[in-house]
Amino acid sequence: MNVLFVGAHPDDIELWAGGTAALYAAGGHTVYFCVATNGNVGSTELPPDQIASLRLDEARRAAGVIGAHLIWLNFDDEFLLDSRESRTAFINAFRQAKPEVVFCHYRQDYNPDHSISGMLVDECVQLCGVPNIKTEHPPFHHTPHVYFMDTPAGIGFEPEIYVDITSTFATKIELVRAHASQNSWMKHVFGYELEAFLEIPARFRGLQAGCRFAEAFRPSYRWGRTFQQHYLPNMLSVKAREQVS
Amino acid sequence: MNVLFVGAHPDDIELWAGGTAALYAAGGHTVYFCVATNGNVGSTELPPDQIASLRLDEARRAAGVIGAHLIWLNFDDEFLLDSRESRTAFINAFRQAKPEVVFCHYRQDYNPDHSISGMLVDECVQLCGVPNIKTEHPPFHHTPHVYFMDTPAGIGFEPEIYVDITSTFATKIELVRAHASQNSWMKHVFGYELEAFLEIPARFRGLQAGCRFAEAFRPSYRWGRTFQQHYLPNMLSVKAREQVS
Amino acid sequence: MNVLFVGAHPDDIELWAGGTAALYAAGGHTVYFCVATNGNVGSTELPPDQIASLRLDEARRAAGVIGAHLIWLNFDDEFLLDSRESRTAFINAFRQAKPEVVFCHYRQDYNPDHSISGMLVDECVQLCGVPNIKTEHPPFHHTPHVYFMDTPAGIGFEPEIYVDITSTFATKIELVRAHASQNSWMKHVFGYELEAFLEIPARFRGLQAGCRFAEAFRPSYRWGRTFQQHYLPNMLSVKAREQVS
Amino acid sequence: MNVLFVGAHPDDIELWAGGTAALYAAGGHTVYFCVATNGNVGSTELPPDQIASLRLDEARRAAGVIGAHLIWLNFDDEFLLDSRESRTAFINAFRQAKPEVVFCHYRQDYNPDHSISGMLVDECVQLCGVPNIKTEHPPFHHTPHVYFMDTPAGIGFEPEIYVDITSTFATKIELVRAHASQNSWMKHVFGYELEAFLEIPARFRGLQAGCRFAEAFRPSYRWGRTFQQHYLPNMLSVKAREQVS
Amino acid sequence: MNVLFVGAHPDDIELWAGGTAALYAAGGHTVYFCVATNGNVGSTELPPDQIASLRLDEARRAAGVIGAHLIWLNFDDEFLLDSRESRTAFINAFRQAKPEVVFCHYRQDYNPDHSISGMLVDECVQLCGVPNIKTEHPPFHHTPHVYFMDTPAGIGFEPEIYVDITSTFATKIELVRAHASQNSWMKHVFGYELEAFLEIPARFRGLQAGCRFAEAFRPSYRWGRTFQQHYLPNMLSVKAREQVS
Amino acid sequence: MNVLFVGAHPDDIELWAGGTAALYAAGGHTVYFCVATNGNVGSTELPPDQIASLRLDEARRAAGVIGAHLIWLNFDDEFLLDSRESRTAFINAFRQAKPEVVFCHYRQDYNPDHSISGMLVDECVQLCGVPNIKTEHPPFHHTPHVYFMDTPAGIGFEPEIYVDITSTFATKIELVRAHASQNSWMKHVFGYELEAFLEIPARFRGLQAGCRFAEAFRPSYRWGRTFQQHYLPNMLSVKAREQVS
Repeated sequence: MNVLFVGAHPDDIELWAGGTAALYAAGGHTVYFCVATNGNVGSTELPPDQIASLRLDEARRAAGVIGAHLIWLNFDDEFLLDSRESRTAFINAFRQAKPEVVFCHYRQDYNPDHSISGMLVDECVQLCGVPNIKTEHPPFHHTPHVYFMDTPAGIGFEPEIYVDITSTFATKIELVRAHASQNSWMKHVFGYELEAFLEIPARFRGLQAGCRFAEAFRPSYRWGRTFQQHYLPNMLSVKAREQVS
Repeated sequence: MNVLFVGAHPDDIELWAGGTAALYAAGGHTVYFCVATNGNVGSTELPPDQIASLRLDEARRAAGVIGAHLIWLNFDDEFLLDSRESRTAFINAFRQAKPEVVFCHYRQDYNPDHSISGMLVDECVQLCGVPNIKTEHPPFHHTPHVYFMDTPAGIGFEPEIYVDITSTFATKIELVRAHASQNSWMKHVFGYELEAFLEIPARFRGLQAGCRFAEAFRPSYRWGRTFQQHYLPNMLSVKAREQVS
Repeated sequence: MNVLFVGAHPDDIELWAGGTAALYAAGGHTVYFCVATNGNVGSTELPPDQIASLRLDEARRAAGVIGAHLIWLNFDDEFLLDSRESRTAFINAFRQAKPEVVFCHYRQDYNPDHSISGMLVDECVQLCGVPNIKTEHPPFHHTPHVYFMDTPAGIGFEPEIYVDITSTFATKIELVRAHASQNSWMKHVFGYELEAFLEIPARFRGLQAGCRFAEAFRPSYRWGRTFQQHYLPNMLSVKAREQVS
Repeated sequence: MNVLFVGAHPDDIELWAGGTAALYAAGGHTVYFCVATNGNVGSTELPPDQIASLRLDEARRAAGVIGAHLIWLNFDDEFLLDSRESRTAFINAFRQAKPEVVFCHYRQDYNPDHSISGMLVDECVQLCGVPNIKTEHPPFHHTPHVYFMDTPAGIGFEPEIYVDITSTFATKIELVRAHASQNSWMKHVFGYELEAFLEIPARFRGLQAGCRFAEAFRPSYRWGRTFQQHYLPNMLSVKAREQVS
Repeated sequence: MNVLFVGAHPDDIELWAGGTAALYAAGGHTVYFCVATNGNVGSTELPPDQIASLRLDEARRAAGVIGAHLIWLNFDDEFLLDSRESRTAFINAFRQAKPEVVFCHYRQDYNPDHSISGMLVDECVQLCGVPNIKTEHPPFHHTPHVYFMDTPAGIGFEPEIYVDITSTFATKIELVRAHASQNSWMKHVFGYELEAFLEIPARFRGLQAGCRFAEAFRPSYRWGRTFQQHYLPNMLSVKAREQVS
Repeated sequence: MNVLFVGAHPDDIELWAGGTAALYAAGGHTVYFCVATNGNVGSTELPPDQIASLRLDEARRAAGVIGAHLIWLNFDDEFLLDSRESRTAFINAFRQAKPEVVFCHYRQDYNPDHSISGMLVDECVQLCGVPNIKTEHPPFHHTPHVYFMDTPAGIGFEPEIYVDITSTFATKIELVRAHASQNSWMKHVFGYELEAFLEIPARFRGLQAGCRFAEAFRPSYRWGRTFQQHYLPNMLSVKAREQVS
């Protein structure tokens, strides 16, 4: 199964769904990380070009940790807009990844790139199969399911389904650490040390879900993507509960 | 796995979740039908005692169709209240069925017995394991998941998850027809022939879900019952999607 | 057409829907005022029995202003509960009035009698036609539409439809003034002079609705009561808009 | 009365509100169909220019079925954006139609052209009367009411008001069939035969509304457009209900 | 200022608002703990009478930690109902405490005693001043503000306002530990060690609020209790922000 | 403390938050009025350039009434879009004002400039501190709180917090009257005389809040802007309530 994660900035996927991505990879699925912007404002010291270049390197390194394929859309950081260019780029990325499942930011997230990239995924994913929309990669003919990732500190986000990431939490830390330039930046923006920022939400979502560490998601309920079953990693090997207990 | 369906009146389970119940039964699971009231006002011709007696017979016949166990709480029709007596009776029924999954009416359904029985399930299901609440059946020590069933004509109900009942729709008809006394009554109350009333929602939910006939549900998100996986029949044998397509 | 207004206390109908009631009456419709409790705590000076007796007199006087029929359920003020007794009393009142349209308090109103009476109307109105529920008045066989009345100062109430009461606002004042004992009580409870408390919301709802004075409502969307048309007074003589402009 | 329907693509109006449009036309009202995009990706075989040209022909034919006036905005299919150009084009279309009532897509519909066209109608309709916004057609000076049309398979759409289209359902079929090129396309996109896709929702909305076939709507509650009365076809000749029963 | 906390069971106040209560106490305010039920099912070993007696002792000890006054309503655990008796008991408790601010459970909390006690506070708090409702304590004449406390693991609870409890978190631990009998019980019910269950939510709410440990609340917006200012402990000594930074 | 108000058009700030702005100014705080568009369509008589020029004069005069600093972004009236240009202009305005608190339109307000300017504030305010986003004014390093202002006639707006503007209501009138050209325009657009339009909502919000005249707001709950305390004028000098009563 192909699984696509779409983040607004380098390190977003890792922060909000890194443990889940690692589970898919560990389960033998093909994972794609699509990064909408180049992160070229994400530094207090480096100028845009240099930080963008550095962040691409880091994104490659992070993707490499779990063998994910990186799709780099290269839009300017904090200036992702709804436009013909962005709709086309997203559709092309979907076609490159041919995913069964797509993860993206919540449409009511806290940042314009987050909100707009979530909107672009949610609205445009069903356009993959339209042959007259020409992009580099050819159309494919199923509609992927879409899950929204958690928000920073979970503000305004009511989870509907959880993934137990206890077994991949260490990998999640590694994924985020690959974005070495962002540690001081995150301290600057979020006011928190990396580990605290990762661990507190993971433990809280775990408390809600009944496990040690968890990531939380909401499905997008839309035409062609309603749910008879979920394709989350913890469901890919469901056994009837009584067999377990 | 034990699965418990709680309906306000005889025939409610069959109407809103009969196809799903049949799927569980066909899958070898143990199914319980718990009926909160005795349906003793559900007739334009018979007096309360006679109609209640007749409806118990019909409920037994319906349960027999799929080999479900019947739990008959015998509260008066249209007068189910939140009381010590009703909370205790519900807890005892949970303990009798020892379910992994419970289905009940939506708390914003259209009828007081529906709303109150939904509330009693949703609020009291986690009390099953409290030893100092003494009932006929002993406590058990896990918290079942809870799903809300659809409403009449789906009014005010936004589905979150669907079960494909194409293979059991004929059985669903049979389950409802076992409630022979209710055909004219339903015509009286709903103004619709039985088949139309069953078929139109099943086809609409199927249209939404991408299959011929479906039933629709909403999980109840509560402490101890959040979702890492669903235990709906279509999920008990999940295969990764790419293997199918 | 028969129209039923159900208020928790004497003067509630007049306060939140008096102008609309006056419009129905002026249009030749038969209006019922059903008062759930006897208002027996609504005084800082009189004991319960005396104030209840006085309030019944006042309620009669108010109903008389527009020729409405008064139904007095006589439950204790601030202690209306969901019970067999209250469900039966409400069903009997519906049957007495045989309404096409029922108005009641919003289910998220600010007072337990308001909330419970709104719930009892909303949940039990479709039980009017059930012959095995025996009450003094016989069953009838249609399901009335239900509208929720505004809340005090409109808190938490999003109107969906408005009635222009400019022509009956003076009558509304008269209806409320018939509850003479409540003027000082309202000052005590609401901290506002009667006129201010009536006029400010009426003008604000009028501003929203595009007229001088208005009352605001929300329909109850439930099985058997969905809307193909409204039966509000301003809709009973609708002319196509172009004929007007 | 002038009535304007705004659809994202050719055939959208027909699919979600064709029966209602036919009722207005049958009632002697002047109906406008405004189509935002030219549908130039809606084919698996034809290239954009040819399919756009064909779809314009079909849209004319459909409009002709009920004598509606066609307004063709000619934006590119799947690339409608919020822009100065689109706001101006929508305002000009409103001014051309001078409607009392406007129908548009729901703002949370499943497709970007649907969502954006719904937004453009909802936000810009009150700008019709601003003389300094110059467009081909002159300003007019009332604010039309706005209703949102149903979504595909009704996902995420809670109806508030219904129109009984039993008498025009055959015309609705004819309206949709005029879009002959779209039958195979719809099979491709929706996976359903045309008749099934039209009939299942119409019967479900009819079940909810208490008639055979219905279309469902939600009003837009906004400044200058709040509701004292509705101008839906079934309300234009309202008779007091007691005259009927 | 008098501050009243109303919990469903002994230890609920401590668990969801203990840090805030400690802040009020430290600020010189008079704090009341009102416990609705006697907790008489909260044990896997002791029978009801003994556990109730033990829990009263523990509740006294906990209240003693911060010098709070204990009000013990003694309803049966898990069987709190909306009744004349419970409404009267709650009104009497309000009158005893004469609070400016009341804290209670969220009305959509996970347990019937939680939901019902939240409802009783929210609906009945404005009845304190009604002289004809006779209770042991006399009426008082202002309407307290009401805040809803967080839910277990925060499920379904969107905070609106936070209290920084970093300085009283140790006291909160002490308050909860005073309920010694409940440590094993909580392990039984919640599956978590006490410290983990306290610490994870406190750190998560702190992450949301920008401090180390926090408790989260939602105001109740109702007639007579709308907000021009909050009376939370962190607001009682507000300094203009620029003076701080 | 610096306080920034962002309005879509000249006179919006004055209409929806003028009394609050006057309170801040009276309290010695530094107030900024940022006007997104130049109002160049707001006339039935003057052409765009002349009306824009006149409106700038009026905006300066209004700001002068309370000594506020005016920031004039000069976008075209009714054509404010989400673009690189608008995001940058807003960020620059934030940096110029360096506010602790920002007021803006509600994101579900009735007009595209209102909605878009509310979105731009809500999404972009936390970008002020990003050094690589270069604007005329330098970055600053705290995240302001954001409050949404009321809507016209309060439609669709549920207040969460109120400011008592009784003492500045006369100033609010003066602020709005400074926009002399808009009096006839408002009559044209809103159909109301200025005084009525100002007074009716102010009295209604006052009725809700328990004072004579009030303005109503909703906080924006987002990462970095959650609330431990509010910085509204009536809170800047909070005294414990018992000291007052």
